[in-house]
Amino acid sequence: MSLCRLVVTCPDRVGIVARVSSFIAEKGGSITEANQHSDLETGRFFMRYEVETRNMSVDSDSFRQAFACIAKEFDMQWQWRDGEQRRRRLMIMVSRESHCLVDLLYRWTAGELDCDIAGVISNHEDMRSVVEWHGIEYHHVPVAADDKTSAFSSVEKIIENSQADTIVLARYMQIIPPALCERYSGQIINIHHSFLPSFAGARPYHQAHTRGVKLIGATCHYVTQELDAGPIIEQDIQRVTHCHTASDLVRLGRDIEKSVLARGVRWHLQDRVLIDGNKTVVFS
Amino acid sequence: MSLCRLVVTCPDRVGIVARVSSFIAEKGGSITEANQHSDLETGRFFMRYEVETRNMSVDSDSFRQAFACIAKEFDMQWQWRDGEQRRRRLMIMVSRESHCLVDLLYRWTAGELDCDIAGVISNHEDMRSVVEWHGIEYHHVPVAADDKTSAFSSVEKIIENSQADTIVLARYMQIIPPALCERYSGQIINIHHSFLPSFAGARPYHQAHTRGVKLIGATCHYVTQELDAGPIIEQDIQRVTHCHTASDLVRLGRDIEKSVLARGVRWHLQDRVLIDGNKTVVFS
Amino acid sequence: MSLCRLVVTCPDRVGIVARVSSFIAEKGGSITEANQHSDLETGRFFMRYEVETRNMSVDSDSFRQAFACIAKEFDMQWQWRDGEQRRRRLMIMVSRESHCLVDLLYRWTAGELDCDIAGVISNHEDMRSVVEWHGIEYHHVPVAADDKTSAFSSVEKIIENSQADTIVLARYMQIIPPALCERYSGQIINIHHSFLPSFAGARPYHQAHTRGVKLIGATCHYVTQELDAGPIIEQDIQRVTHCHTASDLVRLGRDIEKSVLARGVRWHLQDRVLIDGNKTVVFS
Amino acid sequence: MSLCRLVVTCPDRVGIVARVSSFIAEKGGSITEANQHSDLETGRFFMRYEVETRNMSVDSDSFRQAFACIAKEFDMQWQWRDGEQRRRRLMIMVSRESHCLVDLLYRWTAGELDCDIAGVISNHEDMRSVVEWHGIEYHHVPVAADDKTSAFSSVEKIIENSQADTIVLARYMQIIPPALCERYSGQIINIHHSFLPSFAGARPYHQAHTRGVKLIGATCHYVTQELDAGPIIEQDIQRVTHCHTASDLVRLGRDIEKSVLARGVRWHLQDRVLIDGNKTVVFS
Repeated sequence: MSLCRLVVTCPDRVGIVARVSSFIAEKGGSITEANQHSDLETGRFFMRYEVETRNMSVDSDSFRQAFACIAKEFDMQWQWRDGEQRRRRLMIMVSRESHCLVDLLYRWTAGELDCDIAGVISNHEDMRSVVEWHGIEYHHVPVAADDKTSAFSSVEKIIENSQADTIVLARYMQIIPPALCERYSGQIINIHHSFLPSFAGARPYHQAHTRGVKLIGATCHYVTQELDAGPIIEQDIQRVTHCHTASDLVRLGRDIEKSVLARGVRWHLQDRVLIDGNKTVVFS
Repeated sequence: MSLCRLVVTCPDRVGIVARVSSFIAEKGGSITEANQHSDLETGRFFMRYEVETRNMSVDSDSFRQAFACIAKEFDMQWQWRDGEQRRRRLMIMVSRESHCLVDLLYRWTAGELDCDIAGVISNHEDMRSVVEWHGIEYHHVPVAADDKTSAFSSVEKIIENSQADTIVLARYMQIIPPALCERYSGQIINIHHSFLPSFAGARPYHQAHTRGVKLIGATCHYVTQELDAGPIIEQDIQRVTHCHTASDLVRLGRDIEKSVLARGVRWHLQDRVLIDGNKTVVFS
Repeated sequence: MSLCRLVVTCPDRVGIVARVSSFIAEKGGSITEANQHSDLETGRFFMRYEVETRNMSVDSDSFRQAFACIAKEFDMQWQWRDGEQRRRRLMIMVSRESHCLVDLLYRWTAGELDCDIAGVISNHEDMRSVVEWHGIEYHHVPVAADDKTSAFSSVEKIIENSQADTIVLARYMQIIPPALCERYSGQIINIHHSFLPSFAGARPYHQAHTRGVKLIGATCHYVTQELDAGPIIEQDIQRVTHCHTASDLVRLGRDIEKSVLARGVRWHLQDRVLIDGNKTVVFS
Repeated sequence: MSLCRLVVTCPDRVGIVARVSSFIAEKGGSITEANQHSDLETGRFFMRYEVETRNMSVDSDSFRQAFACIAKEFDMQWQWRDGEQRRRRLMIMVSRESHCLVDLLYRWTAGELDCDIAGVISNHEDMRSVVEWHGIEYHHVPVAADDKTSAFSSVEKIIENSQADTIVLARYMQIIPPALCERYSGQIINIHHSFLPSFAGARPYHQAHTRGVKLIGATCHYVTQELDAGPIIEQDIQRVTHCHTASDLVRLGRDIEKSVLARGVRWHLQDRVLIDGNKTVVFS
């Protein structure tokens, strides 16, 4: 191990930083990046450290064992992620729009996403060729309107078998069933093609066009059982004018969608996104 | 007269541009800025010309008389605004937040707004001093919760007497009654402190904070009888993070509000905003 | 033919719009998009019309023949581009950075770029696989430091043989020789990875990092004999902080580069970019 | 005292955070906001804590005395700013452009700037009225082309007598002499009306217009003896097109200038800007 991450959430109180940073210093670790946040409304404290462990006197297992005492004392949810464990396994789900998928694959190839790709699941065959060209397994799971249950039972098995821990809905146009949302709570990332909470639901660009807004947007958020209402990770917008038709909005929106999703996924993979009720703390 | 504006709206059909531009050329006018738009959905055509009239053979009255024939043929709503008429008279309405008012007054002093200020109406006394320092008349019209009718009857009389033709709600926190909306239809400009249609209604920054959005915005729109739902003129946003409290959003929002309102008002005064159903065509 | 484009540049004077729009109306054409600009400093006039020609009484050849008289009278440089001719042939040149190339290929596949891809030329072999996967010919032309002349003679022949008319330098890291710049004047588009005129020349992100700027940018411009000094088509920026290393800037910059280049190329292909001395008029 | 700030710069090494945060915890202080940065190139460490001191067992003087030992050990430059000391005294210098001055005065009135205004110095009389309306002393110090020395000797005396510690050049169009730069090193903030390092020197908007850039900008930076080359605090940009004349750029630029300057000054006053060689660390 060399560069590790410590991520902590706990009730706020005096002395957390002192205790944690002293512990790391004692063990010979060097903090190279530090982020902290106190939510004054909820009284929760959030912290993320990047730790250079080259000169540390203990290995990850011993570190965790020793840290557990502090964690207990401060009632922490925490994670010490070292180099070996760090790589998450991503399952990408997609329907017929390719832009987010292709963008993620490109960034992954370029080394921008610190993860393995466990596979791609789609309710259509359209993306098979580009996915397989990247050497990634493609799972076609059609979703029949009258038998979604069996489709999602297949989806769940594929995710399980591939040992994926993070699911990215890269313009996947089916609603994820509650049980799956629950099971991968805080691990399913969606890109919604509007500036939420505006234009939730279907055909947001057409809604935006009808309303005559001057900016369109996209929102990357965690999926919860309530549609389009989960914690927001990232948003961005693009200026539009009366000249743009609804289909221009669709085209312009693709660029925002893919960059917003890519940022959200990248930050998630770097443990920079901490969930705080129905909001997020993003140490970007 | 020297620089004039011709603004036209009519059903779209072949030959409008040819007819209008030929007419102007025949009279010796020179088009220095031209904007056109066809709304394919509504079949409406929109056009705005800036015309240098130094070498024109006719004066404004003759121009109008002659143009009326074309206008009739093409079923146009139109306006020829010459230098004398051009200056609109602005009535600004404000409650307790000063930032939009002060910004408008500053821009007006700096020559950015081509209008006269007919006065300022407020339901509070707070802004009297700054308004009067600018040599502008200040009208204090309290709005009692149980007698809004008489308050707005006073407001209407003040507007009438001051010969204002455009009303700017610069963070005026009372709802304008339907009759006034109707009378000054397309002439009342409001600034709403959210990225509409998100967070319509009261306390939008607090709504935004609760929802955990990553961008806040402001919207400049024409006022209609349906609250916060009139045609949008301009919008803009500002990035925020988990670090920002609701009152930080209020502070950051002030800057967006004033710049968005200023742009909207400036474009309106330059006849750059044409209403197209519940949307706007903005020739900015 | 159906949707055609008329692009005109000429000395500004009264009556151009009237004459051109009347001519089009007489022939039964319908203007669906119109843009005009007068450069008051140079006295040049620029105009671009999209014309629906379904009901036109003449074909493209007759149109051109008839329009030539007007063009002569007004001393116009002009182009009438109909559906058959419209598709330009793009030669993409690239070195080792793939992001702009891959982005252009993706957009081309998605139908965002109205052109054929004539081929890809590179001084390295790295991109062969991805290019050929798209069914596009790949030309490897190494550029030896001591014999650039013969390399660029090969490049020129490949461009000629492929009948390319537009050349996109998608992070091509060799300097284009003057003769080639001259021959394809106004047809070679480069992406420079800085906010020109800041940080012209080599390693702009490192220059930017050293200077401590808070925004980095990219610039899409036409290539002229003077390095990094040709007419600018489009620019954009990205916010950075003290936390970002030079290599973070490189990574963040890739996203700006590809979107700025894509916009520039798209507008060029749609004849929306008109050269005005060392500047551009962009009817976007 | 209640909310205090600890700002530290020192050579980076293991254990700084642990030592400082433990010290604060021991004294009963509670860290409400924490920022840290390691510059890997210079090996410098930067840190800023906001500390709630309500429950602290020591007063500011004792705190400083005790902290001095740690500071010595780690070779720190540091500052403990408590409530009483916190208010800096701002001297604003201005020439004939009023927008930055008026904006700063408005924000100061609105409580956005945590400082006292020590006065305004100008080489012209133009701003006297608006400044005095705010109850602020106005010093007219003409700068004769052939006797700048005596003018700046007056300026220096006024600054001294007013006990100003921070100087804001809010579009002050004279060059500050080296001795004054030196004396108030890191305390003189300028707004430059371009996106530095582009268009340094005079008439940047005209330079930008001539070059045909598609974005204009403004830069807030500390003043050093090298003109327009000091550490950059903040920058922002605004999109422009071929339609904008040089004087449009001037108008549009005013909005960027004032918001960029206001952000820079606000952050400086909150001790969020730490100088790192010729760059800045901005804990915004």
